Amino acid sequence: MSVLIVGSTALDSIKTPKAANPRLLGGSASHAAVAASFFGPVNLVGAVGDDFPKRYLDLYRRHGMDLAGLQILPGKTFHWSGEYEINMNHRRTLLTELGVFETFTPTLPKSYLKSAFVLLANIAPSLQHHVLNQMKRPRFVVADTMDLWLNIALEDVLRLLKRIDGFVLNDSEAHQLTGEDNLFGAIRKIHKLGPKYVIVKQGSHGSILSGPRGFFICPAYPLNEVTDPTGAGDSFAGGMMGYLAAAQGSVDRNIRRAMVYGSVVASFCCEGFGLTRTTRVKRGQIDRRVKELEELTAF
Amino acid sequence: MSVLIVGSTALDSIKTPKAANPRLLGGSASHAAVAASFFGPVNLVGAVGDDFPKRYLDLYRRHGMDLAGLQILPGKTFHWSGEYEINMNHRRTLLTELGVFETFTPTLPKSYLKSAFVLLANIAPSLQHHVLNQMKRPRFVVADTMDLWLNIALEDVLRLLKRIDGFVLNDSEAHQLTGEDNLFGAIRKIHKLGPKYVIVKQGSHGSILSGPRGFFICPAYPLNEVTDPTGAGDSFAGGMMGYLAAAQGSVDRNIRRAMVYGSVVASFCCEGFGLTRTTRVKRGQIDRRVKELEELTAF
Repeated sequence: MSVLIVGSTALDSIKTPKAANPRLLGGSASHAAVAASFFGPVNLVGAVGDDFPKRYLDLYRRHGMDLAGLQILPGKTFHWSGEYEINMNHRRTLLTELGVFETFTPTLPKSYLKSAFVLLANIAPSLQHHVLNQMKRPRFVVADTMDLWLNIALEDVLRLLKRIDGFVLNDSEAHQLTGEDNLFGAIRKIHKLGPKYVIVKQGSHGSILSGPRGFFICPAYPLNEVTDPTGAGDSFAGGMMGYLAAAQGSVDRNIRRAMVYGSVVASFCCEGFGLTRTTRVKRGQIDRRVKELEELTAF
Repeated sequence: MSVLIVGSTALDSIKTPKAANPRLLGGSASHAAVAASFFGPVNLVGAVGDDFPKRYLDLYRRHGMDLAGLQILPGKTFHWSGEYEINMNHRRTLLTELGVFETFTPTLPKSYLKSAFVLLANIAPSLQHHVLNQMKRPRFVVADTMDLWLNIALEDVLRLLKRIDGFVLNDSEAHQLTGEDNLFGAIRKIHKLGPKYVIVKQGSHGSILSGPRGFFICPAYPLNEVTDPTGAGDSFAGGMMGYLAAAQGSVDRNIRRAMVYGSVVASFCCEGFGLTRTTRVKRGQIDRRVKELEELTAF
């Protein structure tokens, strides 16, 4: 089954202490869609400007994506520029040029309307709503967010939480949203806001799922070097949703393994700038790291 | 088999945003020894003053400890006072009164000299050396440390690393010791300094083992409330060593499970001030949380 992914499609200029890379393919939807593509077909919803390099469209196609939902609009592609500190734990935004995203409205092609699995990757929550407004209630909807929307569009986020099955956020966002210092207290409060599944990303510490079957502690793959963590969270969510859409059986039964797959795709993402490493990965390499994580957590 | 534990035996006055508790039983050896006592006999090495409350000696005895190595010296018991911030992640020391620890030298009773399992809990590294100097090479020696010793007694720590099998430290200490930002890079450098087993504590994120069989990602038990994390790291190391000393078979085979047991004892430690919660725990409760952690990490 294909997964519908909406989010930002962007060009990222990323500086780390070791290198600077201008105008790489980026954006939450790009990372999530490439991650999901390892497991099955992806319907991509986003917008790029007429400056968007053809090689990046080719890249999307090579990953088997349906691009009927990708609008190519007159104007400039969304451009983000950021810089990481030495330990890669903090980054600051140097520049945000919204370009075509200033006026973008995600209109779904008819062929996308019945998608069962929907990932609302990080993008303005009003646009996440707009996608759901066009669809019959999909089988499983997960939304991601970022601190910005909790600051400037909290009401939209809160309304969204009542319309989705799963919510993905990082631990500082969980604290910001709930005012709870204890992670598990914060998770309880987020459940009360709507979502049945709450997934808290903890970077190199992995992630925590809280769902109908209780908690799951999902490990991160040990990395000797983090080249660029941009998009790791999106890769995690995309890999998870791609795996879920492709798997047989209930979400409840598959979601733990889906998270581990997402975690592994995120580990590859961190090993290169932008999508440069992820796009060179083969499915067999992903399976091997999942197997390794089984061994690394067994006791 | 009994485990020999040396470290500080102290009175702790602990403030958190919710409460203040003066002069509780504390110190690295107290926490580690109580934790180890759930699994088998413990030989305690430390020193207290003549002001040390009899009820705390009774507490040690109730946990089946051999106190032949606990010196009761004229003077005051080591007293530490500290205060935690709201999220329990940072604490500051308000007061340190060394008392009898100013002149303490850990002399081992003859009955302790052939102990196979030795935990050098956090204490000045010169004293950790002094313990080893009195013994034939024990079968398995683990040392813990703290940032203070890396600052003021680095040479002693470096010499110690060549004499031990396992080294336990937290991630900021690993970075401090090696200058490596990447955790796995730091671990590699610590192996080169001597220890075959390196264990990095990561608080609520669990811990990482690096040993002859590769890495192990050890989970932390999810806690809805952390009342007082003082002694959690000592409880972890003590529980691990107690389990190892009691288990049949090789350290290599048992150490992962030993860490999970240590992690669970540490979780109880965090649920009460000082040792108040840990000392009320029954072995069956520990086994249940270990079982829960198996379920929480399975995928």
